[in-house]
Amino acid sequence: MSQASIRTAAQPPADLWGTMRTARACRSFTADPVPAGLLARCLEAATWAPSGGNQQPWRFAVLQSPGARSAVALGASRSLVTIAETYRLTRPEPGDGSRRARMARSVFGLHETAAEVPAAVLFCTRKLPHVSPLLAGASIYPAMQNFLLAARASGLGALITGWHEAAEAELRETVGVPADWDLAALVVLGWPRNAFGPVRRKPVAQVSCLDTWQQPFIGSAD
Amino acid sequence: MSQASIRTAAQPPADLWGTMRTARACRSFTADPVPAGLLARCLEAATWAPSGGNQQPWRFAVLQSPGARSAVALGASRSLVTIAETYRLTRPEPGDGSRRARMARSVFGLHETAAEVPAAVLFCTRKLPHVSPLLAGASIYPAMQNFLLAARASGLGALITGWHEAAEAELRETVGVPADWDLAALVVLGWPRNAFGPVRRKPVAQVSCLDTWQQPFIGSAD
Repeated sequence: MSQASIRTAAQPPADLWGTMRTARACRSFTADPVPAGLLARCLEAATWAPSGGNQQPWRFAVLQSPGARSAVALGASRSLVTIAETYRLTRPEPGDGSRRARMARSVFGLHETAAEVPAAVLFCTRKLPHVSPLLAGASIYPAMQNFLLAARASGLGALITGWHEAAEAELRETVGVPADWDLAALVVLGWPRNAFGPVRRKPVAQVSCLDTWQQPFIGSAD
Repeated sequence: MSQASIRTAAQPPADLWGTMRTARACRSFTADPVPAGLLARCLEAATWAPSGGNQQPWRFAVLQSPGARSAVALGASRSLVTIAETYRLTRPEPGDGSRRARMARSVFGLHETAAEVPAAVLFCTRKLPHVSPLLAGASIYPAMQNFLLAARASGLGALITGWHEAAEAELRETVGVPADWDLAALVVLGWPRNAFGPVRRKPVAQVSCLDTWQQPFIGSAD
């Protein structure tokens, strides 16, 4: 697909507010593939994000080959151990329909079939001299967020994972990531099995303040 | 304003794609204030972002007091030195209407009047154990990006600055940021003096790859 055709492709209009409010983590996908043109459209949205000095220090690696998918699966498998420990997740009984059981089932299911996710994108960022490691994230995670919103608006479900840290050496090796680039995130996505609900978040009043840490911000005070 | 009224406030619909494509950095604002309710709406959009384990390790400090604004101005003034050096910016002649001169003029203008920006928000993030400094950004910069998109959709212009690093001690002191929280970004915003154009970015084909670093991603190949 040419750049021109990506840029002019008819995108169904999507309401920004509704998209942001329902861009939930998705862990359960149908077997349907994600068309490359659609991925490219979401990646183009990623490029529209800001970065320090507009340097655009990003590279997006779409992972499809058996070798790349092995590294993805390895990262998932190692991450599952940590996640299960951290959240004290146990494999739920087959008949358990509680919210926690459903969550646990989707976590185990996703991690154990990670090689087969419909699509996986590794977000890489060039190391920037004189930029703190935290602030370096300001030049890659806005791009990732644009990508997630574009995916949501296209009907796709996505999940940010930390699998790239659990299998960093293997991913670097198979993809050939240069030493002066960092792995920032591994996002998996596909067509969601379930409907999107709104996100669950703390209210603004609890997470904002005016001038000093304890003073409520009046725009959000009850 | 109550949380309920924020949540149900009539938001003019905004097209996600057009918003993302025109969310450019803005350095020149009118003197008009930004209503607190509008800031709160943009902050609510920030809360809809993803974060690791949905921990929402964020706090958004709206900076208005003279003390807080002094620290903002100090950060801007110190940053200007670095920026002018890095980009070899010199104060343009009054009659110079070139693109570079206009850019330089807006950079000097913004940094030298930083205390008077219509609005300034400090994005803070709680230090997360067992999370790398880069990956910690994945739990705050998506929120910042949602905030920027919400601001753009509301007609506001915004700029991500690194002023919080240049005046970290002073900002921590005046705001009272706890030691176990990091400063992630200082965003300034207001009503833009000029029209929004589309962002300028490298094409997807140049910044994406398939499986290996040098292999073009077919969805974006020409």
